[in-house]
Amino acid sequence: MEAEIIAVGTEILMGEITNTNAQAIAQVLVETGFDNYYQSVVGDNTARIQAALKLALSRSEVIILSGGLGPTRDDITKAAIADYLKVKLVEDEESLAKIKARAARLQQVLPANNRAQALYLKGGRPLKNRAGLACGAYYQTQDHRHIIILPGPPREVAGLLTDEVQPLLRELNPQEFKLYSRFLRFFGITESRLAASLDDVIAGQTDPTLAIYLKGHEIGVRISTKATNDTAAQAKLIPIAGQIIQRLHRYYTGEGEQLSLKDRVMQALLDHHLTITAAESFTGGLFQTSLTHYAGVSRIFKGGWVTYDDAIKTSWLGVPKATISEQGVVSAEVAAQMAVRSRQLLETDFALSFTGAAGPQGLEGQPAGTVFIALAQAGHPTLVREYHLGGTRQAVRERSVDCAFKMLYDRLLGND
Amino acid sequence: MEAEIIAVGTEILMGEITNTNAQAIAQVLVETGFDNYYQSVVGDNTARIQAALKLALSRSEVIILSGGLGPTRDDITKAAIADYLKVKLVEDEESLAKIKARAARLQQVLPANNRAQALYLKGGRPLKNRAGLACGAYYQTQDHRHIIILPGPPREVAGLLTDEVQPLLRELNPQEFKLYSRFLRFFGITESRLAASLDDVIAGQTDPTLAIYLKGHEIGVRISTKATNDTAAQAKLIPIAGQIIQRLHRYYTGEGEQLSLKDRVMQALLDHHLTITAAESFTGGLFQTSLTHYAGVSRIFKGGWVTYDDAIKTSWLGVPKATISEQGVVSAEVAAQMAVRSRQLLETDFALSFTGAAGPQGLEGQPAGTVFIALAQAGHPTLVREYHLGGTRQAVRERSVDCAFKMLYDRLLGND
Repeated sequence: MEAEIIAVGTEILMGEITNTNAQAIAQVLVETGFDNYYQSVVGDNTARIQAALKLALSRSEVIILSGGLGPTRDDITKAAIADYLKVKLVEDEESLAKIKARAARLQQVLPANNRAQALYLKGGRPLKNRAGLACGAYYQTQDHRHIIILPGPPREVAGLLTDEVQPLLRELNPQEFKLYSRFLRFFGITESRLAASLDDVIAGQTDPTLAIYLKGHEIGVRISTKATNDTAAQAKLIPIAGQIIQRLHRYYTGEGEQLSLKDRVMQALLDHHLTITAAESFTGGLFQTSLTHYAGVSRIFKGGWVTYDDAIKTSWLGVPKATISEQGVVSAEVAAQMAVRSRQLLETDFALSFTGAAGPQGLEGQPAGTVFIALAQAGHPTLVREYHLGGTRQAVRERSVDCAFKMLYDRLLGND
Repeated sequence: MEAEIIAVGTEILMGEITNTNAQAIAQVLVETGFDNYYQSVVGDNTARIQAALKLALSRSEVIILSGGLGPTRDDITKAAIADYLKVKLVEDEESLAKIKARAARLQQVLPANNRAQALYLKGGRPLKNRAGLACGAYYQTQDHRHIIILPGPPREVAGLLTDEVQPLLRELNPQEFKLYSRFLRFFGITESRLAASLDDVIAGQTDPTLAIYLKGHEIGVRISTKATNDTAAQAKLIPIAGQIIQRLHRYYTGEGEQLSLKDRVMQALLDHHLTITAAESFTGGLFQTSLTHYAGVSRIFKGGWVTYDDAIKTSWLGVPKATISEQGVVSAEVAAQMAVRSRQLLETDFALSFTGAAGPQGLEGQPAGTVFIALAQAGHPTLVREYHLGGTRQAVRERSVDCAFKMLYDRLLGND
């Protein structure tokens, strides 16, 4: 079955916002087995909304529109569609009650515009919007085209996709064959090098299909196939997944689209109650910010240091002045001292340290992007890694934090 | 003049990437005075690329396509367009030399696919791509439609937009009237409250036009008008800008689309050599990460603390144990102690401190989102602000850091 997406919004055409809704909707179409050959964007203009709808109805069975359901004068999507289809708009009692309750809470008189947010196409049904006031709408035309109307704000779209659109699409397109996929993650290798090293695996590969793409700083490889059940799917997916993992095991950071490298490391630290601290120079607290992103981290993280200045590294951590002056502050020795001493001060299982030249200028003769990261662990020799990273100052900092998580990941698996 | 945008790429239709190119191109169209009524996306498919082009040629004078110029088999955009227009593709010598040099450097034999990246439409001209191998192409049809073909990678598109597309569009659409705008920034007020408080200004306002939108955690108000010169434009823009700033002065954080609240504060600190430190609990280093985002910050920032644990707040900073146990760790008193003591330890001009419940759970009876931020300054009473912030753990943390920058901003202007 073919579906297409129409985003309505002059702000998209003006380049003021990115059309992220189209991507979110497209992902749901892929999951539910629809073919999606077209996406389009039109402004908040009756004639152009209707023209876009007409074209879409001529070539697709399902049309999903988003945007233009707000309370302002230029929100006209539902009215434009109802007019084109010669259908009346009617009020959804539940949505109207929500709108009235909000106006009462804010002690406002209910404007007619707000009331319009509760409308849907007569003969169809409203789609519940748990994150906003405007209900969506579903309508089936006489020649069995399906029109789904969603609001514009991405948070509202996300709720409606899960609550209403996915179940509806599954009903419209019950699948004997479903899409099954495995998602493998890699870190520390460039996308082009990864692609090159899988060249012979990819060549001529049609089932399962392989797709490579960036996922944050990690690279994802999705292996997909259609099958009637999981067992049949895995029989096709497992051999190729195994082959890829074997070839790239040095860079492999696990499976699954949701859990990042950081998530996996933090889960392991929290599960095994392994305590951690850090002393950060050029990363300026970014590593500790990442740690404390996770709720419940107080069990394993008590605190740490941002030791930006050389003298602070000496006075707070006890890094010998001589080491800094002899080796330079951007050096393996200083990184090691920072990690070892901060670990000792807090008696944690692990300590990470960061010293480097984030850029744009170099530091003490070291070019921008030169970075030393040390991992100290009780009862283990301290590991120091030197990296030469490209990109902006912020990219160097982010990448360094990811490298530290990879060092921890390898250590936790006994792979370093 | 009317222009439209066609993005080519099955990965967009599959929801694997966001179509950010459309936004970048749309912004250039706005700047150069074109009307943009349509954007569309098609996959890497000859028939559908040609159908999209046909439709676009029927309604727009300028058509900008992006994507599908890479070296792989499914990159067919130029060939599909040449075939539709019945025009030959010819090789651009300069691009070809670049492609050959790269293959030589990598000691590869030049594949025919790579060679195809140097093609453009005969009778038109190639568009230089400084960030990649595939040249773009410009072609004018016999009935004076202008076709601009760009690659897909956003970094390459950005280079081509600046180097080639903007000058070309200015030439095609020389403007007597140019678009002038002012961009005002506000922080600490919601978008809907800001809109409501400007309701009477916005109502019936057609020239200048007003647009409100989110810019990070700040809210931007763009006031735009068309005029033949800057003096004429400012005569229309200044009165309304002044009216808006006057009404919302408490929230005003300056003018200009580029400089954020953080940029302004950091610029002021660096310019006046005002030193700063921080003691962070639930923000976990995020404020210091923001400080050290700026190159050259070592002049004013030597270091700081992530004091996540209660005992650490006492042992490192000297926050009295009794204050924590009597007032609770999420309290104005603890925030004040953290700021005052960290400022004294490093003898800085300013110190910021953060204590709060980031969520998802509350802390010591304080609901999630309850946050105390203190600003200590040498020779000034310590300012403590209490905030009740909504959203995810990460949103509460980010918002808190922004609030701290607003506190600094107001202090620097003598507004608090």
